[in-house]
Amino acid sequence: MNKNSTINIGLIGFGTIGSGVVTLFNDNIGLIESKAGKRVKLKKVVDLDITTNRGVDIDPSILSTDVNDILDDPEIDIVIELIGGYQPAEKFILTAIKNGKHVVTANKALLAKKWDEIIKTAQDNNVRICFEASVGGGIPILQPLNESLASNNIKSIYGIINGTANYILTKMTEEKLEFENVLKEAQMKGYAEQDPTFDIEGFDTAQKLIILSILGFGVYVKQEQFHVEGISKITSRDIEFISEELDCFIKLLAIAKISNGELDLRVHPTLIPKEHLLASVKDAFNGIYVVGDAVGPVMMYGQGAGKMPTASAVVGDCLEIINNMEKKVDYGPNIKSIDRIKNIDEIISKYYIRLTAVDQPGVLHTISGILSDFNISIESVSQKNGMDDQVVQIYMVTHEVLEKNVARAMQKIMDLDVIKGDVLFIRVLDE
Amino acid sequence: MNKNSTINIGLIGFGTIGSGVVTLFNDNIGLIESKAGKRVKLKKVVDLDITTNRGVDIDPSILSTDVNDILDDPEIDIVIELIGGYQPAEKFILTAIKNGKHVVTANKALLAKKWDEIIKTAQDNNVRICFEASVGGGIPILQPLNESLASNNIKSIYGIINGTANYILTKMTEEKLEFENVLKEAQMKGYAEQDPTFDIEGFDTAQKLIILSILGFGVYVKQEQFHVEGISKITSRDIEFISEELDCFIKLLAIAKISNGELDLRVHPTLIPKEHLLASVKDAFNGIYVVGDAVGPVMMYGQGAGKMPTASAVVGDCLEIINNMEKKVDYGPNIKSIDRIKNIDEIISKYYIRLTAVDQPGVLHTISGILSDFNISIESVSQKNGMDDQVVQIYMVTHEVLEKNVARAMQKIMDLDVIKGDVLFIRVLDE
Repeated sequence: MNKNSTINIGLIGFGTIGSGVVTLFNDNIGLIESKAGKRVKLKKVVDLDITTNRGVDIDPSILSTDVNDILDDPEIDIVIELIGGYQPAEKFILTAIKNGKHVVTANKALLAKKWDEIIKTAQDNNVRICFEASVGGGIPILQPLNESLASNNIKSIYGIINGTANYILTKMTEEKLEFENVLKEAQMKGYAEQDPTFDIEGFDTAQKLIILSILGFGVYVKQEQFHVEGISKITSRDIEFISEELDCFIKLLAIAKISNGELDLRVHPTLIPKEHLLASVKDAFNGIYVVGDAVGPVMMYGQGAGKMPTASAVVGDCLEIINNMEKKVDYGPNIKSIDRIKNIDEIISKYYIRLTAVDQPGVLHTISGILSDFNISIESVSQKNGMDDQVVQIYMVTHEVLEKNVARAMQKIMDLDVIKGDVLFIRVLDE
Repeated sequence: MNKNSTINIGLIGFGTIGSGVVTLFNDNIGLIESKAGKRVKLKKVVDLDITTNRGVDIDPSILSTDVNDILDDPEIDIVIELIGGYQPAEKFILTAIKNGKHVVTANKALLAKKWDEIIKTAQDNNVRICFEASVGGGIPILQPLNESLASNNIKSIYGIINGTANYILTKMTEEKLEFENVLKEAQMKGYAEQDPTFDIEGFDTAQKLIILSILGFGVYVKQEQFHVEGISKITSRDIEFISEELDCFIKLLAIAKISNGELDLRVHPTLIPKEHLLASVKDAFNGIYVVGDAVGPVMMYGQGAGKMPTASAVVGDCLEIINNMEKKVDYGPNIKSIDRIKNIDEIISKYYIRLTAVDQPGVLHTISGILSDFNISIESVSQKNGMDDQVVQIYMVTHEVLEKNVARAMQKIMDLDVIKGDVLFIRVLDE
């Protein structure tokens, strides 16, 4: 760390978020320096492509294609990594840390995959690493979890933390559209990637949940250790039934709960009663609902992605580092509260079930027999005409039941000749 | 500050919140010490009454009625002040600071009244003062405003920050009850004070708004400098009309906005469209909606009062101090962004107007004539039977119009012989 009164920052990655960071340093430098109590200078911006016009004022002399212009510059105090992905981001971050530089990153994928190594390296080298932008974009969530709420045993976290999935589900709900059509529209508008798998199948949400679980419970769990399920099988008929008959919305939810030393971690679409505040988190917005043993429920809400909201968190992290350079790298509670991770088979929940069957006598009898064999008790059942006259759609809501039984019953039901297409079951929020 | 590895804390005020703090130190001490990285000890608890059973385990030897057992003890590092009010709280806080002790307080009244003096004393004595619990109970709002969002120019803050008022309005809305009846019930349940003026007339909200304004805009405004208006004139018929015809809820809102160097600060009931997230903040919950130039809108939600939520913030502040003892006392942006404070007369808003008139020909004509004289254009008008056959209730919504004109027109209308009882006008949320 250089001892003079100017803090020099190096930015790796001059894409959307990177140019947002440059914009924020341009526009709000007076504010930033007043909060830092010293001069703050964006000394170098590195990207493979430094010729594309990013629509932002920048001194061309600070642009470079050579990352070592940042990593090897002893005058640079803080490195912002915004290229994302595993490599070369990991190499850059580890080198920066080893060179004594503090790091700000939005790289949830890397943190989720290599948490232990990155944090240990930061601790060994006595530098700070901040990553508020990695979950919930500009929403203050990681800092509150780690600091403001630090006197609480966190009991549960429920997060709507993927804007693309939430946008799609909101559009399907409000405009009664099918998944594929909304996805296509979202892709055209740039709200969804050309390959949307990462967002809609829950993997992005899972990476963020891993980080939330570290901050909330002090437990680092790998993605392979918990259930991740996306939203691509949900139809507008599911949404309509759930809204009208069950007074719920469907949200792609990251869930983390502790009970009796068991950590219950999962990502899946979830029925949320319309009265619940999470049901009001619409469009591309994010909401993270946290329950602490003292504070009770709190929720943080805002834009979970996008150029300027994410830049807000990145520059906020720079200020946090500048104002607390000597603070130790310490995330999450340091006391052991988890004995084991619960398997999805072991959870107990209410379920919404939708299946399509041939319209003939005895079908419901056969299905209800299987459910009964697996000890699944039904709260309500409703039968509606299917897409054509040959089939009917059956909607059911169960009482609380063991997931393993539901999964096995559904397998057995799917094997029936009278069942056509998917059998879908969606868990109901259980707070 | 003592240099050994134990942090000693003195608590002044062993009432509801105070006993919550003791409970939290009892129950979560392992967690608290792990986050502090050192031993943390509640060394002394002072109250005038130390004989009442507070329902919490406490070593009787740490109880005292002599505040100097805390203020004069050189081993005490942090003083928690939870007696509230102006005196002797002010004297205790200033003495603690002058004796080199850091201070944690929930005392919004004192901070709102004596901000400059208290902060300057803390700065002069190089100690920290934290007060997250003074606004929004356990909700992380002040720290996010001051730190996580520090790279933003805050453009506006809208807060539902009085649980009692929000509880009353929610009950009136959901159960179609009158103000007085709900208030009585709330008093019986302990949700409202025996003298509820402070909560229902907006003064509590105003004190919190003063603190939010410092943190968000760096401007300290006194309560006399802005408009404060409560909820006691709202009837269940207003709420019903507003809900059914205008698709809005009424909330007691703290509003702080900047435009063109003018600070617009006010507390009053406000019509909020049901679609807006603030409309979903119900019962005794609080929600603070902040708009930053980079982050866009964010909202923090949770329990704004109560024993354990408030204790969560108090102990969170202790941890913040323990982990950042050398941090300078620095609240809000340090750059001047405000030239003047707007008068309520100068705001432009849409208004809901309700008045009761004698049921006779020409009344509406007379009223609409006055409105027209003051350049007030009406978006909709609706007339309903009053409580008896002699009168009608007239509900109107205006287009955007200058407040001064509305106030003057209402004065003139009230002076008409045909007008009976109150004339009420409520501003519509203008984001």
